[in-house]
Amino acid sequence: MDFISREDLSFLLHDWLNVSALTEREAFGEHSRDTFDAVLDLAADLARDTFAPHYKSADANEPRLVDGKVETLPAIAEALATYAEMGFFASSFPEEVGGMQLPSVVSSAAFAHFCAANLATAAYPMLTAGNARVLVEFGNQAQIDTWAKPQVEGRYFGTMCLSEPQAGSSLADIRTKAVPEGSDDFGDRYRIKGNKMWISGGDQQISENIVHLVLSKAPDENGVQQPGIKGISLFVVPKILPDGTRNDVAVAGLNHKMGYRGTVNCLLNFGEGEGAIGWRIGQPGQGLALMFQMMNEARIMVGLGAAAMAYRGFTQSLEYARERPQGRPLGQKDPNSPMTAIVEHADVKRMVLSQKAIAEGAMALVLYSASLVDEIKTGADAATRARAEALLGLLTPITKSWPSEFGLVANDHAIQIHGGYGYTREYDVEQIYRDNRLNPIHEGTYGIQGMDFLGRKVMGDKGAALAILGEEIAKTTARAAAVPALAKMAADLTGYFNDGCAAITELQGRADPARLMDNAGQALSAFGHIVTAWLWLEQALTAHDLDDSRARLRDGKLATCRFFFEVELPKVSHQLHLLRSANDAAAAVSSDLF
Amino acid sequence: MDFISREDLSFLLHDWLNVSALTEREAFGEHSRDTFDAVLDLAADLARDTFAPHYKSADANEPRLVDGKVETLPAIAEALATYAEMGFFASSFPEEVGGMQLPSVVSSAAFAHFCAANLATAAYPMLTAGNARVLVEFGNQAQIDTWAKPQVEGRYFGTMCLSEPQAGSSLADIRTKAVPEGSDDFGDRYRIKGNKMWISGGDQQISENIVHLVLSKAPDENGVQQPGIKGISLFVVPKILPDGTRNDVAVAGLNHKMGYRGTVNCLLNFGEGEGAIGWRIGQPGQGLALMFQMMNEARIMVGLGAAAMAYRGFTQSLEYARERPQGRPLGQKDPNSPMTAIVEHADVKRMVLSQKAIAEGAMALVLYSASLVDEIKTGADAATRARAEALLGLLTPITKSWPSEFGLVANDHAIQIHGGYGYTREYDVEQIYRDNRLNPIHEGTYGIQGMDFLGRKVMGDKGAALAILGEEIAKTTARAAAVPALAKMAADLTGYFNDGCAAITELQGRADPARLMDNAGQALSAFGHIVTAWLWLEQALTAHDLDDSRARLRDGKLATCRFFFEVELPKVSHQLHLLRSANDAAAAVSSDLF
Repeated sequence: MDFISREDLSFLLHDWLNVSALTEREAFGEHSRDTFDAVLDLAADLARDTFAPHYKSADANEPRLVDGKVETLPAIAEALATYAEMGFFASSFPEEVGGMQLPSVVSSAAFAHFCAANLATAAYPMLTAGNARVLVEFGNQAQIDTWAKPQVEGRYFGTMCLSEPQAGSSLADIRTKAVPEGSDDFGDRYRIKGNKMWISGGDQQISENIVHLVLSKAPDENGVQQPGIKGISLFVVPKILPDGTRNDVAVAGLNHKMGYRGTVNCLLNFGEGEGAIGWRIGQPGQGLALMFQMMNEARIMVGLGAAAMAYRGFTQSLEYARERPQGRPLGQKDPNSPMTAIVEHADVKRMVLSQKAIAEGAMALVLYSASLVDEIKTGADAATRARAEALLGLLTPITKSWPSEFGLVANDHAIQIHGGYGYTREYDVEQIYRDNRLNPIHEGTYGIQGMDFLGRKVMGDKGAALAILGEEIAKTTARAAAVPALAKMAADLTGYFNDGCAAITELQGRADPARLMDNAGQALSAFGHIVTAWLWLEQALTAHDLDDSRARLRDGKLATCRFFFEVELPKVSHQLHLLRSANDAAAAVSSDLF
Repeated sequence: MDFISREDLSFLLHDWLNVSALTEREAFGEHSRDTFDAVLDLAADLARDTFAPHYKSADANEPRLVDGKVETLPAIAEALATYAEMGFFASSFPEEVGGMQLPSVVSSAAFAHFCAANLATAAYPMLTAGNARVLVEFGNQAQIDTWAKPQVEGRYFGTMCLSEPQAGSSLADIRTKAVPEGSDDFGDRYRIKGNKMWISGGDQQISENIVHLVLSKAPDENGVQQPGIKGISLFVVPKILPDGTRNDVAVAGLNHKMGYRGTVNCLLNFGEGEGAIGWRIGQPGQGLALMFQMMNEARIMVGLGAAAMAYRGFTQSLEYARERPQGRPLGQKDPNSPMTAIVEHADVKRMVLSQKAIAEGAMALVLYSASLVDEIKTGADAATRARAEALLGLLTPITKSWPSEFGLVANDHAIQIHGGYGYTREYDVEQIYRDNRLNPIHEGTYGIQGMDFLGRKVMGDKGAALAILGEEIAKTTARAAAVPALAKMAADLTGYFNDGCAAITELQGRADPARLMDNAGQALSAFGHIVTAWLWLEQALTAHDLDDSRARLRDGKLATCRFFFEVELPKVSHQLHLLRSANDAAAAVSSDLF
C-alpha cells in the first residue's frame, strides 16, 4: 500500500504547482515531466519495498552501544544502500557535485514517500543532504571534494552538532571550544573540545565515514574570543580523518526515545584526548549564519516528515475505518440488521476528514515552500528571487510547526479511529504518533518558532514579508471570488488575514516591548491556519477545474476545503483576540504561584 | 515528591467541598476530619513509597505469557500486597462487607495519589472495587460472601468482560453464549462459551483468584433468546471454582500496548472445553443494566486516572522548569548575564498554567462527581438524592472525557517543557502521555461519550438534568457576581451556559432526527469546558476567602481561574456554533470521497 496517495501528489505537483514548467528553466532543462514522474514512482516503490518493512522492527530493536560503537538494525543499512544505489542522496544536488539537479519541489515530494514509510530511516539521508549542502555552498573545493561529494553519493553520512547538555535552544551559551592549529590542504585547522547533545546519526556503522558539522566557540581573526553568538564558528569534523585515522570523537551515551527510534541519537564527546581535528567553514564568527542554512532546510524537512506521518496515519486509519464493521446507523433499532463500516459514523467521518484536511493541507504547505526554494535559485529575475526568499523566510516557521502541531492531532485521530487496537503495538498508528511527537521539539521548539515568526519574520522587517504573503493571498481570493462555490471562502480568508495583520499592529501599539512575544505561539498557530486555509483554497480552485473523469479527487478536495474553512479556520478568531489584546493571563502570573 | 499537591487536595476537600460535614450523616458517623486526613496522608506516603518506584520498570518489563500463564513484574504484586494490608481495597465499601465505609469523595481523593504514582498498578484495585460493588449491590448472599468479600480484602481481584473481537462498543453484537445448567448454592448456574477482548487484569499470578464479570447472551425465563441487548445477562465466572478446581477460562493472547503496560490486557477464551461455569447475577436480560453500574463507576475512575496523570505531568514539568536554566529575558542582550530558569519564559508559563488549569480543574470535576455519589447514597431526602443522581448522570460522560481529552493536552505540554529530554525515556513525561492515551478509548470512547451526553443525558430527559446543572451554576454565579474580581467571569459563564442550552434547542428544531448526533463530540467538549469553568469559579470563590497565610494558594487559584476564563472558555463559542447550525461539513461528505 502507498501511505501517500500518488494521485494526490500528482495533483499537487502537476495540476496545482505545474512543476513541468520548471523544465523550461536552464537549471532543470535536462528534465521533463516524464523524468519527474519516474523519480516519484521509483521513490514510492522503493519506500514501500525497502523502508516500510522494517518500520516496526526498528522501533522494537533500537540502536545499542556495544564497546563504544553504535549498532543499528541491519535492515536500516540495507534500505539506505538501495536508496544510495538508486541515486536518491543526489536528487537535489547540482550536477557539478554529482547530483541529479532535480527541483526541490520534486525531490521533496519523492522524499515524502520515504518519510511516510519510515521516518527514522529517512532521517539519515535528510541530515546528510542538509550537511552536504552547507559544504557545497560554503566550503572550499577541498572540503567539497573530500566531504560533500561522498555524501552526495551516499557513502558518507552527515550530522549537525549544535546543542550541548547545558545549552539547548540557547546557542550563545555553548561551551565547545576550538583552538587554531594552523592550516593545511583542507583550510584552517583547529583542535575542538566539547560535548554535543541530541546528535542524530552521531554514530553508526552504516556509512564509511560520518561528517559532523560542529558549532564551536573560536577566536576571531585577531585571536579574540567574541562573546555570545558572534564568537561562534562552524567546523567540519569527520569521524575518520583524511589520513584514515580515527578522529578524537567518542560516543558518550545514547538517548532512548519515545519514538523515532531507528535514528540513533547520541551525546558526543569531542576531544576527550588531544582534541578533535576540525576545519573551519567560512569565516570566524559566521558559524550560526552558515549553520542556519542547514537549519532552515532541516525545518522544512521536519515539516515534510510531519506531513508524511499525518498522511500515513490518515491512509491507514481510513483503510481500517472502511473495513471495520461496528454498530448501526442512528435510528436503526433492529439488532439483526448488518453492522455498518465505522467510516459511516459521523464522529469517525469527522476524524477522517480532519486528518485529510491536515495531511493534504500540510503536504501542500511543504511542497509550496519547496517550490519557493526553486524560485529563489532559478526565478526569472532578482526581484522575483528576493520576493520568494522573503516569503520562504516568513513561511519557514509555519512550514516547520503547523504540520508538526496538527500532524499530531491527525495521528491522535488515527489512534482513536482504531479504538483499542490503535493503542496496541500490533497496529502502526501508536508508533506513528510516537515518531511524530519529536517534530514540535527538534530543530527549534514550537516556542522558538513562534518567536522567529512574530519577532524576526513579521516585526523584524516591519511587515514587508507579511505584505508579500498578503499579495499572494489576494491573487488567490480574487480568482476564488469569481467561483460561486468558493466566493464565501475567499471573503472569509481575506477577513481572517486582515484581522491577523491588524492584530499585530494593535499589539505593537499596545504592548510593552519586552512583552511583545508573550502570545507569539498564538500568532504562529493562527497564521498557520490562515496559510493552510489559503493553500486549501488554492487546491479547491485547481480541483474545481477538473473534469468528471477525476470527480472523486475533485469533489473530495472541495469537501475538505469546505471542512477546513467551516470547522478549523474560525478557531483563529480567539487566537487573534488574545494576540491583539496582549493578553497576559499567563505571562503576568508570578511563577511562585504555580 | 508528591505528584499531587496535598495542600491542593486539602483545599478541594475541606475548604471547597467541606467533606467534614459528611461525618454528621449516619453512614459516615464513625469518621472525622482526622480519620479522613490520616487516610489521605497514608495514601500519599504509600503511593510514593510502593507504587511510584516501579513506574518505569513496569513499563520496560511488560507482562509476559509463559506456558499459558501471565507473569507480571514482582514489584506490582508487592505494592498491591501493601495496599491490601493497609485496607485500601476496603476503603469505599460498607462495614457489613468488611469495608471502611469512607465517603466516595475521600476514597477517590486517596486513590488519586495511587493513580498518579502508577496508573497501571492502580488499575488492579480500581477494577476490583468496581467488580465487588456490582456483587455487593446485585449478587445474592452466597455470591457476596464467596466473591465480593475476598475482593474487599484484596485477596481476589476482579475484571469486567464486555468487548469481543468483533464487538467493541457495540455490545448488542456479542456472541458469547450461556447455557443454563440448573442451580446450586451460588444461584442459577450456566455453561459459558465465547471470546472476550481487552480484559484488563484478565490473568495474573498476583491474587488468589480472579473474579470475572461476564456479559453473555442467555435465554430468558421462558428459554427464549431475546435479540440484541435484551438478550444479555451478567455472570460471575471465577478463575478458580469454589471447589478449588480451575474453571474453563484460558488466556488466548496478550495485547501489547502503547502505555499502561503494567496492567496486563488479554484476550480470554471462555469455554474452550465443556464451557466455563458461571452464575447469573440478577435477572435474565438485566446484564447491561447491571454492568453499567460498574461501568459508570469505571468512567468516573477513568476521569480520576486522567486527572491524576495530568497532575503528575504538571508537577514534574513545573519542577523541571524551575530548575532548568536556559536563555535570558527578552531584551537582555548581554551574553554573559546569567541564564534564567525556563519557568520565567512566557511560552513556558503558558504551558505550566495551562497544565495547572487542566490538572486542578479535572481533579475538582472528578471529586465533585464523587461527592454526588455520596449525595445519592446519603442525601437528606429522596428529592436531594434524585437530583444528585440526575446531575451525576449528566456529568458522568464529562467526568470521563474532559480529563481524558485535556489531560493529554496537559501531558503534551509537560513533554514540550522538557524539550528533547521530555522525548526520552530517561524522564517520566513521555510515559505519562502514553499511559494517559488509553483514557479517551477505554470504558466507552470519546465518540460514545458524546452520544451518551447529548442523546441520552441531555435530550433523553428533555433537558431536565441540564436544567438542574443550570440551577447549580446559577447558585455559583449569584455568589460570584457579588465579588468584584469574579463578577465578569460569573456573567461570562452564565452567557456560555445559556448559549449552550440555546444551541441544543436550535439544533433540535433544525436537524433531521437521524443527524442530531453529528456534532455530539462538539457538545461534549463545549459543555466540558463550561462545567470546568463553573468549578474553577467555585474554586476561585473559595480561594477568595482565604487569608494571607495562604496567599500563595489563594492567588494561584485566582490567577488560574482567570486564565481558564480568558484563554480556554471562549473556544466554546465556535463549538456551539457548529452544534447550533447542525454543521454537516463532515457528516454530509460521502465516505467514497475520502
